[in-house]
Amino acid sequence: MSSIPISFSQRARHSVEAPISYLMEQGISNPDIISLAAGLVDQESLPREEIAEAISHLWKDPRRAKDALQYGTTPGHHALRGKIADRLRDMDRHALKGTMNADDRHPATAGRIVLGTGSQQLLYILAEVLLDPGDIVLGSAPGYFVYMGALASFGARIIPIDTDAGGMNLDHLESTLVDLERSNLLARVKFIYDVTYFNNPTGLSLAADRRRPLVELAERWSKTHRLLVLEDAAYRELRYHGNDEPSLLAYDPEGERVIYAGTFSKPLAPGIRTGYIIAPDDLLEQVIRQKGHHDFGSASLNQQLVLEMLESGAYDRHLATLRKVYSAKLAGMLDQLDQELGNERDRVRWTMPEGGLYVWMELPTSLSTTMDSSFFQHALSSGVLYVPGNFCYPDTDAGAPRHCLRLSFGHQSIDRCREGVTRLAGVIRQHLPSS
Amino acid sequence: MSSIPISFSQRARHSVEAPISYLMEQGISNPDIISLAAGLVDQESLPREEIAEAISHLWKDPRRAKDALQYGTTPGHHALRGKIADRLRDMDRHALKGTMNADDRHPATAGRIVLGTGSQQLLYILAEVLLDPGDIVLGSAPGYFVYMGALASFGARIIPIDTDAGGMNLDHLESTLVDLERSNLLARVKFIYDVTYFNNPTGLSLAADRRRPLVELAERWSKTHRLLVLEDAAYRELRYHGNDEPSLLAYDPEGERVIYAGTFSKPLAPGIRTGYIIAPDDLLEQVIRQKGHHDFGSASLNQQLVLEMLESGAYDRHLATLRKVYSAKLAGMLDQLDQELGNERDRVRWTMPEGGLYVWMELPTSLSTTMDSSFFQHALSSGVLYVPGNFCYPDTDAGAPRHCLRLSFGHQSIDRCREGVTRLAGVIRQHLPSS
Repeated sequence: MSSIPISFSQRARHSVEAPISYLMEQGISNPDIISLAAGLVDQESLPREEIAEAISHLWKDPRRAKDALQYGTTPGHHALRGKIADRLRDMDRHALKGTMNADDRHPATAGRIVLGTGSQQLLYILAEVLLDPGDIVLGSAPGYFVYMGALASFGARIIPIDTDAGGMNLDHLESTLVDLERSNLLARVKFIYDVTYFNNPTGLSLAADRRRPLVELAERWSKTHRLLVLEDAAYRELRYHGNDEPSLLAYDPEGERVIYAGTFSKPLAPGIRTGYIIAPDDLLEQVIRQKGHHDFGSASLNQQLVLEMLESGAYDRHLATLRKVYSAKLAGMLDQLDQELGNERDRVRWTMPEGGLYVWMELPTSLSTTMDSSFFQHALSSGVLYVPGNFCYPDTDAGAPRHCLRLSFGHQSIDRCREGVTRLAGVIRQHLPSS
Repeated sequence: MSSIPISFSQRARHSVEAPISYLMEQGISNPDIISLAAGLVDQESLPREEIAEAISHLWKDPRRAKDALQYGTTPGHHALRGKIADRLRDMDRHALKGTMNADDRHPATAGRIVLGTGSQQLLYILAEVLLDPGDIVLGSAPGYFVYMGALASFGARIIPIDTDAGGMNLDHLESTLVDLERSNLLARVKFIYDVTYFNNPTGLSLAADRRRPLVELAERWSKTHRLLVLEDAAYRELRYHGNDEPSLLAYDPEGERVIYAGTFSKPLAPGIRTGYIIAPDDLLEQVIRQKGHHDFGSASLNQQLVLEMLESGAYDRHLATLRKVYSAKLAGMLDQLDQELGNERDRVRWTMPEGGLYVWMELPTSLSTTMDSSFFQHALSSGVLYVPGNFCYPDTDAGAPRHCLRLSFGHQSIDRCREGVTRLAGVIRQHLPSS
C-alpha cells in the first residue's frame, strides 16, 4: 500500500466506527449465538408470494412496467405519494374517531411527501439541511442509536430528554429548553426527535395526552426560528394490542412544524428499502434539492411495487399476518421473561410493549451491561447477544445508564426468542447480587 | 404559513436550484417538444421480460427470495460484488489483449467494491469523505454537470481541464498542477474527475495512450497526500464501434489511487438504480462508514436482480440488443446532422462518438446557446430542447464557452431524433451570420 495517505474531509476524519457493527458481525458469523441484538425482521413471513404477484400484475400493464424500469423524479412516484397521504389522513381520522379538528384539516398531501431509500436516507438528508456543527437536537433517551450516530457525524449535539412509561417527558423537555435559553443556546436547537410509536429501544409510545402538547410546545418555543418536531413513525403499523394514536401531524394542520417519517421496510420488506417523509413545504424543497445531489431519485421499481401492493390490498393483508406473527413472538418473549425472572421483579424490570420489535430491560444499577463488561462477555459465551443499553444514549452523555439492555424479537423464531431469554436469564441470575 | 423561518444549515443555505430542472420539466410537461436534453434511456428496449424472468427464477429459490426481501449489509451483496470484480478484470484483460501487466495483477476484488443507489450516490459519498469547502477537484471540461453541481454543493472548487478529441488534455492537467503548486494550493487538490468512456457531454473517450500516463501523473503529483483519480465509467459498456479500452484500474495494480465508478442504470435499467465503485481500501472503509449513516445498505431486491441477470446471461443479451438500438439512433442523428448541416461544416461542428448517449455541437463563437439566449427561446418555440453547453462547465468558469449544445439520442425514437435535429438545424440556419 502507498505510504502517502489520503487527505480526507473533516467529516470523514471525525467519523468513528459504529460499535454496533461488531455486534452485527458476531450475530451473523456465529450461528450458535442467538442474536437478540439484530434489527432484522422476521424471515419466515417475508412476503415472497405477494411480491411475485405484485410484479406479475404490474407487468401486465406495459406502461407501468416501463415506468418501473425508467428514471423517476427526485421526490418519487406521484401516485404512491398520493396513496401514502390518503392513508395517513385516514389513519389519523380513525385514531381520532372522526373529525381531525374544527376544519378537518390535515397536512398530508402528495406534494408534501418525498420518497427515499428507506426512511433512513431522508432522516440523514434532514440532518444535512438543518444541522451545522454545534447545533442541537433534543432526543428522547434512550433512543434510536443509528440516527444518533448519523446526527453526531454532523457534529450535532444530542441532548437527551428523559422518557417514562408515556414516552418523552415534556416537563423535562421544557426545562431543558429553559436552560438552553438561559445559556443563549436556543438559536442552536433545530429539532426535537422522537420515535412516537413503540420507540426503539423501549417499545413504548408517546402517550395520547402528550401529543398535542408536544406540538404546541414546539410552537411556543419557535422564538428565533421555527423549532421542528421530527416524528419517526417507523413502527406505527406494527401494533399488536390497543388502538392507534393520532400522529403529531394531526395537531399541525397547516404543515408548519411536524416532519413525519414512515417506512415500508418494517411492515412490508426491508429489501425493498422504500420510506418517506412528510415535511413543511419550505423544508421539503431543501430536502428534494439535496436528494437531487444524492441520487436524483430512489429506485422506481421499488416504488411501483409498493404502490401495487397498497392498491391491491396485499399490503394490508400482509400487515395482518405480520401482526399475528410478531404478536406471538412478543408474547413468547414476555412469557419466558416472566417464567425465568418473574421472581426477580423487584430487581429486574422490562417493558410490556403493545407493538414494535423491542423489549427494554433494566437490571440493578450496580450491574454493567456494556460491551466491555464481564456480563456482556458472559452472555456471549452463553450464546446470546443483546444491544447494550448505553448505545441508546448519546456518546456525550456521561451519566447515561449502563445497566440496561435492548432485546429484539424481530428476527428470531419464537423458540429461539425463548431460548435466548433463558440463556440471558441464566447470566443475569449469576450476576445479580445474592439476595 | 408560519412567519417564523426555519434555520437551515450552511449547506442548505448555499444550495441553489439546478437550472437543469427547468429543462426537464419543459421536456416532460409538453409532449409536442422533442427533448434532446433529457438523460433518460430508451423506453422501448427496457428489459421488461428479462426482469420478469429474473424474478421468476430468483423466486424459485426460497432462500434467495428471502435474502432479496431482508436487510443486506452496508457494502452490498457479496456475490454481486464478486461478479462485478470478475467482470471488470475480464474486460480489462480482453481490452489489453491478454496479460494485464507483468504479474497479471488487477485491483478489482469483491472486498474493494461497494454497491449503491446508482453510482451517483457513491460519487456523492466520495465527495463527502474527501472534500472540505475550498478543496479542489480537477475535472475534464466540458463535463458531467450533475456531479459538478454535487461537488459545488460541498463548497469545492472545480478547476476545468481542457479536452480534445482524445479526452482530457494531460499537458493542461500537468500545467494546472504546476500553477496550483506555485500558489501553494496543491494540498487542496483531492482528486481528478473524468468520464473516461464516451464522456457526458462530448461522447468522446480518454485516448488509449493517455490512460497509463494519467495514473502515473497522479502518482507523481501525490506529494503532500495521495492524489486520487475518479474514473466514471457509466457508459463503458454502451460501445457501438471500435474496441474496448482498458480502465485506469488496469494501471493501478495495487489499488492505490484509482476509483472506478460503474452503474447498471444505463446498460440495464435506471429504475433498478444499482451502481458501484471500486476504491482503495482505506478510502472504501470511509465510504462504507458514511453509507452506514445514509441508509446502511441499498435495496437487496435490486442487487439480487442484477446478480441473477449477470449469472443467467440475460444482462449480456440485453446489452447486445441495446447496442444495436443505440447504434441505430446515433447513426440516425449523425446522418440527419450531416443532411441538414453538412454544408455548414466549416462553421458548425459536432462530435462523432463511438458510444454513449450524447453528441456535442459547437456553433460559431458569436452565437450564444444559453438558456436566456434568443437562440434557446427560438429552439423552444420550434419544439426542440437541448442542454446549453455552458451548463457543462463549472459555474465559476467565467470564460466557459457559450456556443455549444449537448444532444442526447438516448430517450427519443430514431424518427424523433431526426425530427429534433431538423428543427434544431432550422434554428441554427436562421441564427448563423449570412455567409
